[in-house]
Amino acid sequence: MPELVDLDAVREAAERIRGLVVRTPLLPCPWADDLWLKPESLQPIGAFKLRGATNALHQLDAAQRTAGVITHSSGNHAQAVAYAGRALGVPVTVVMPDVSAQIKIDATRGYGAEVILVPQAEREATAEALREERGLTMIPPYDHPHIIAGQGTVGLEILEDLDSVDVVVVPVGGGGLASGVAAAVKGLAPSVAVIGVEPVDAADAAESLAAGEVRHWPVERPLRTIADGLRTALSELTLAHLSKHLDGILAVTDDEMLDTVRMLARQARLVVEPSGAAATAAVLHHRSELPAGRVVSVISGGNIDPVLFREVLAS
Amino acid sequence: MPELVDLDAVREAAERIRGLVVRTPLLPCPWADDLWLKPESLQPIGAFKLRGATNALHQLDAAQRTAGVITHSSGNHAQAVAYAGRALGVPVTVVMPDVSAQIKIDATRGYGAEVILVPQAEREATAEALREERGLTMIPPYDHPHIIAGQGTVGLEILEDLDSVDVVVVPVGGGGLASGVAAAVKGLAPSVAVIGVEPVDAADAAESLAAGEVRHWPVERPLRTIADGLRTALSELTLAHLSKHLDGILAVTDDEMLDTVRMLARQARLVVEPSGAAATAAVLHHRSELPAGRVVSVISGGNIDPVLFREVLAS
Repeated sequence: MPELVDLDAVREAAERIRGLVVRTPLLPCPWADDLWLKPESLQPIGAFKLRGATNALHQLDAAQRTAGVITHSSGNHAQAVAYAGRALGVPVTVVMPDVSAQIKIDATRGYGAEVILVPQAEREATAEALREERGLTMIPPYDHPHIIAGQGTVGLEILEDLDSVDVVVVPVGGGGLASGVAAAVKGLAPSVAVIGVEPVDAADAAESLAAGEVRHWPVERPLRTIADGLRTALSELTLAHLSKHLDGILAVTDDEMLDTVRMLARQARLVVEPSGAAATAAVLHHRSELPAGRVVSVISGGNIDPVLFREVLAS
Repeated sequence: MPELVDLDAVREAAERIRGLVVRTPLLPCPWADDLWLKPESLQPIGAFKLRGATNALHQLDAAQRTAGVITHSSGNHAQAVAYAGRALGVPVTVVMPDVSAQIKIDATRGYGAEVILVPQAEREATAEALREERGLTMIPPYDHPHIIAGQGTVGLEILEDLDSVDVVVVPVGGGGLASGVAAAVKGLAPSVAVIGVEPVDAADAAESLAAGEVRHWPVERPLRTIADGLRTALSELTLAHLSKHLDGILAVTDDEMLDTVRMLARQARLVVEPSGAAATAAVLHHRSELPAGRVVSVISGGNIDPVLFREVLAS
């Protein structure tokens, strides 16, 4: 059993990242019953990932900072590490698949990172080789206590901002965000229920929790969901957190997420990606399956493809 | 010369509205040079107007609270008064033109207000008659010190959140927001420049400031701009504030505002109405006309017509 991130670690992370990430507000929803939103889509890179990356880079020693860090990601984590590296003066190398959207490559380079494009299958090996060769530190997207503690600051802020919360709903991909939020919430207020949400086509976390071991679904299945941020499997570390802390886990369909993207644009004036809408989709479409009372849903990110966003708004 | 709202009045307003409005964050923009956004579009009614309405209703005496309040508006102010009334237990009557969008009527009723629909031309007379008949208190949209002080809390929060601000840019319609923000900013940090922004087709504030008296443009001209929140003329009271505090006033075109609506959706993940984008449009399209340095632009609201929003995203 790996050592778990606790409330103290999350509190220390909160001190480290203060002023380097946005202290997102908690938004009441007059259009829904007793629902509040925690919009991490408002982070400068458009996702909560900045919290964990900043907390991890902040804890490097002087030699590690000078040498720099490396990660492999095609998504929000790459931009998070690049942005945090620029803020903290740490050189960043990102290995991205050569099929990555140009807009993501440009954004990552825009934060000053060195981007190395390789075929999808060579991503990990290339990153590992570069790490060794250049003496870099690897910053994983979720499978690390510093990352989990950083993401947990979302949970800390929720309970700081709202006195009486009954349920916190959070999306589950690799499980870093859910692990950190659950650790913070349960550490502060054990009676608050923490519920995970994943796509029906990437519901491997529910299966892993039931089995008590990390289950990997055949790669074709998670590729079916539009929620590209939630396709990843848990790690031993995140499974251990979720096994201990989670009160339940629900699955939502792509249609439910897309409907929620539209609702959040119209009613909450937020641009949200499908993965980012998963938790709110569970509230809007599966309220009866949640514990009763006041709900906070975490909106994990807002990096939606502009064409998809237009289509969703038109439907 | 009317008595002006000062920093103390804004500070008192901040105490009154705490917990009743959203403490909006200040968002850094990695996609623009040294620009921060103050997104009032995130208020539950989608606009800053909730601040002034809440501050005004909070100061009613017991008899006034019991009798209730009245206002006439087809826009964000109606929803702001209705929302604040529900939160503070004050009955609200809103006189709206019978041509108002059903969505706005429904939203105002949804907050528990009594909505009375009359022909556009009878709006003020009906509201005034009802006020007398029922002993209600009139809550004007901008021409009142309590409203101005409430809106000024936006400026207070900007300077609380960011140490070194050089320029604050704020949209000007009736001038309540700009008056309050300027009073707060100049009261706290006289060296920070405060710049107003209005549509080219409703640039009556610049003319009024130059003339030293309130100028009303023929009603057809402001109707040409898409920025429906900025068509109103100044009042004596707001002109007095802006004459004293404003360092300059710029005009933006509809195309510049719409381009900025698109930029803010894509880059800042915010749904913003054209009026709400005016200040940021001035930064993105007229930066050289602003004082140098770090800029904060106030996003006043996000209640954009869904069809227009889709069209803007497609262009």
